[in-house]
Amino acid sequence: MKQLIFFAAMLSVCWTMAQPASDDSSAIKKISDEIFMNGTAYSNLKYLCKKVGPRLSGSPGAALAVEQTARMLREAGADTVYLQPCMVPRWVRGAKEVGTAELIDGKKIKLNIVALGNAVGTPAAGINAEIVEVKNFKELEMLGAEGVKGKIVFYNYRMDPRYINTFQAYGEAGAYRSQGPSRAAALGAVGVIVRTLSPVLDDNPHTGATRYDEGKPKIPAVAISTNGAVELSKLIAAKKVRSVFIKTNCQILEDVPSYNVVGELRGSEFSDEIITVGGHLDSWDLAEGAHDDGAGCVQSIEVIRALKALGIRPKRTIRAVMFMNEENGLRGGTKYAEIAKEEGKKFIMALESDAGGFTPRGFGYSANATQSNKIEKWQSLFVPYGAAEFKRGGGGADIGPLRTLGTALIGLNPDSQRYMDLHHAKTDVFEAVSERELNLGAVVMTAMVYLVAQYGL
Amino acid sequence: MKQLIFFAAMLSVCWTMAQPASDDSSAIKKISDEIFMNGTAYSNLKYLCKKVGPRLSGSPGAALAVEQTARMLREAGADTVYLQPCMVPRWVRGAKEVGTAELIDGKKIKLNIVALGNAVGTPAAGINAEIVEVKNFKELEMLGAEGVKGKIVFYNYRMDPRYINTFQAYGEAGAYRSQGPSRAAALGAVGVIVRTLSPVLDDNPHTGATRYDEGKPKIPAVAISTNGAVELSKLIAAKKVRSVFIKTNCQILEDVPSYNVVGELRGSEFSDEIITVGGHLDSWDLAEGAHDDGAGCVQSIEVIRALKALGIRPKRTIRAVMFMNEENGLRGGTKYAEIAKEEGKKFIMALESDAGGFTPRGFGYSANATQSNKIEKWQSLFVPYGAAEFKRGGGGADIGPLRTLGTALIGLNPDSQRYMDLHHAKTDVFEAVSERELNLGAVVMTAMVYLVAQYGL
Repeated sequence: MKQLIFFAAMLSVCWTMAQPASDDSSAIKKISDEIFMNGTAYSNLKYLCKKVGPRLSGSPGAALAVEQTARMLREAGADTVYLQPCMVPRWVRGAKEVGTAELIDGKKIKLNIVALGNAVGTPAAGINAEIVEVKNFKELEMLGAEGVKGKIVFYNYRMDPRYINTFQAYGEAGAYRSQGPSRAAALGAVGVIVRTLSPVLDDNPHTGATRYDEGKPKIPAVAISTNGAVELSKLIAAKKVRSVFIKTNCQILEDVPSYNVVGELRGSEFSDEIITVGGHLDSWDLAEGAHDDGAGCVQSIEVIRALKALGIRPKRTIRAVMFMNEENGLRGGTKYAEIAKEEGKKFIMALESDAGGFTPRGFGYSANATQSNKIEKWQSLFVPYGAAEFKRGGGGADIGPLRTLGTALIGLNPDSQRYMDLHHAKTDVFEAVSERELNLGAVVMTAMVYLVAQYGL
Repeated sequence: MKQLIFFAAMLSVCWTMAQPASDDSSAIKKISDEIFMNGTAYSNLKYLCKKVGPRLSGSPGAALAVEQTARMLREAGADTVYLQPCMVPRWVRGAKEVGTAELIDGKKIKLNIVALGNAVGTPAAGINAEIVEVKNFKELEMLGAEGVKGKIVFYNYRMDPRYINTFQAYGEAGAYRSQGPSRAAALGAVGVIVRTLSPVLDDNPHTGATRYDEGKPKIPAVAISTNGAVELSKLIAAKKVRSVFIKTNCQILEDVPSYNVVGELRGSEFSDEIITVGGHLDSWDLAEGAHDDGAGCVQSIEVIRALKALGIRPKRTIRAVMFMNEENGLRGGTKYAEIAKEEGKKFIMALESDAGGFTPRGFGYSANATQSNKIEKWQSLFVPYGAAEFKRGGGGADIGPLRTLGTALIGLNPDSQRYMDLHHAKTDVFEAVSERELNLGAVVMTAMVYLVAQYGL
């Protein structure tokens, strides 16, 4: 009897291994047709952007987003939909920021600024100080305490347009937003202005989280639009600026309860093997969070909907997860991994879409050699969808904490050209998303989830 | 002496063949950096869209576009800039179209229509007739003359969203716009309404050329917005429509003189070998023609500018060409090939960008086996720019007539997801173009032109 079971198991393995690629091609084609014909990602995104709107962690918008994506997951046909409670930080911007450069000739120039996320506010009277411009940290260090003390530091680092992948440029320039305040504070600065992380010249300052080093003074920090940075730099070079005034009204309140939203499609054969597919539900307060990351959320919901609509019962369990608090705390992703550790199930793969709802180009994955080799065998299946750029390395912020469970982490890599233009800015709205691009992303995500669900990793 | 020349020639061939790829990689990287740092394609496009605007053949806008792109080519550093005269058709839309469905209950519903390009207008009083809807030509033929005679035929063919490449869907659906009027007229129809060729549901009717078969009656033809088509179809299905009224004011005037604009960078070694790179200068009257095809024009100008700025003197002659009248006559492309035949030079390659200023994905080429093999050897050089999808088959409408000269024809293939949403519609404006996507297209075009200029085909 044992032998028979072994034989049957071997047969099953062989059958699985021998699955002709054409079956997978045709399953993926069905998924694609279903999504392009009947997809709801775009209408769900419209709801999330226009009816819910901005949804920074702890805000009423975030609470509404939890409720509404739970509804969408139920409507998509998830077997079970549930919430995972987690505490989240509550940062509030308060009244609109005021920034002014007072010139030598007495004129005043308005500075187009927004407070950086997680930053402290200025005193109620604002701060008024001399300004000193640096192009990079090296120039800051050269100025030293004597050049910086009591002043506002203006980091005028231009995001390098020469990188083809804009995330590389973002990674480099991002240091000024994240480390800039504490490094300036260490030298006695009273505030910082950071040039917006965007390759385009326009009037939209982009927010985004900063962080303060332990034990350093916490000073106010704002982003200025790229046009504003260029103009301010010219005025400084011409020695026309007497002082700069900044007033921000942001503050960090007590942590509040919030949730990850999870929708599950139970596996028919290996229900204890969990495939996670997600995006993050929170967004910055300035915009609708359409690309960042409404897109990833509605695409993950679409994975469930498309499989269900096609009557595909996955062999392994699929969980679509709307992670809370990616932007300024990562509490949702952290909590999800904590719970996963306690569940005692196999979290075999997690796929995140958090690089915008643009045309997909492929996937990046952080996985062991066996997992990576298996993923790479599927590469050719993605050629017809233009998403066959498979690269080792990658994943996503929210799924990162799963790595310690041996989970293969996969990040969807969409085309990156337009993302940084609108990232964390008020222009990240529904209208900036193409229905077909969003759907195509959902197609290749569903295809990847489908393959892992059927064949394991 | 002959032997020595032969030996030298062989050496030269071997040297050329042995060019290490890394030299080419680094040349292309320099081109890319130059374009992303100092490119003028985007500002030139802004000028073409906002200062020149719509530029249908024979219009004042087209004349201004000739003048201004000649200026841009001079500023880009072309050795010589000249105009190639050609006669072009002059179709004018006239006053805004009126379309109304009169319902059984006496109500009137506005139809969101625009005349198709090259169509005849209605009589001054308009036409009023019963409407008959068909989903495709098969349904039309089944109705026959008795079902169609004296009526307005409504082609409600939905562009198939299941094609990943939207040009395939366009190719299929395009038959209704181009052949629809004559096929309906052959059965006695008095007018046609064609559902807009777009995968999205919105209120923007898209124009585009239709054509009349010789010897068939020429009947008025309009496009209706996709939302309008859906609504009209519902009314017809509910038997609520008594009649439809259409009034269009378009007419075909006498041919008028116009021009192709040519800017040349003379080859240092093989100046008689000509590489053509171009887009078309004319655009439909409803929009700014940003993607169609301002993008291709300014990218072609950028090829000249980037090489000149980098001090690269090509071995073969490069001609950037702004072709006139692609949209409704192809007179510019035809004239260019006519002149080429008379010139007695070798037109070794022509590259056209006329599929929008979106992220480039690769190239399609119609060339002989030797040429194709050579092009394919360069494929890996385009991987870092995400434009390594090399496919046999392709080219461009304007460069098509060069095929009889043995010219290798190459078409730039950008990502196609967003193109049909705005193609020939009022939404094809400067704001719909991404600076980085436009520049990246110019980078890979310049790279391809550079390789052919240095190594021949």
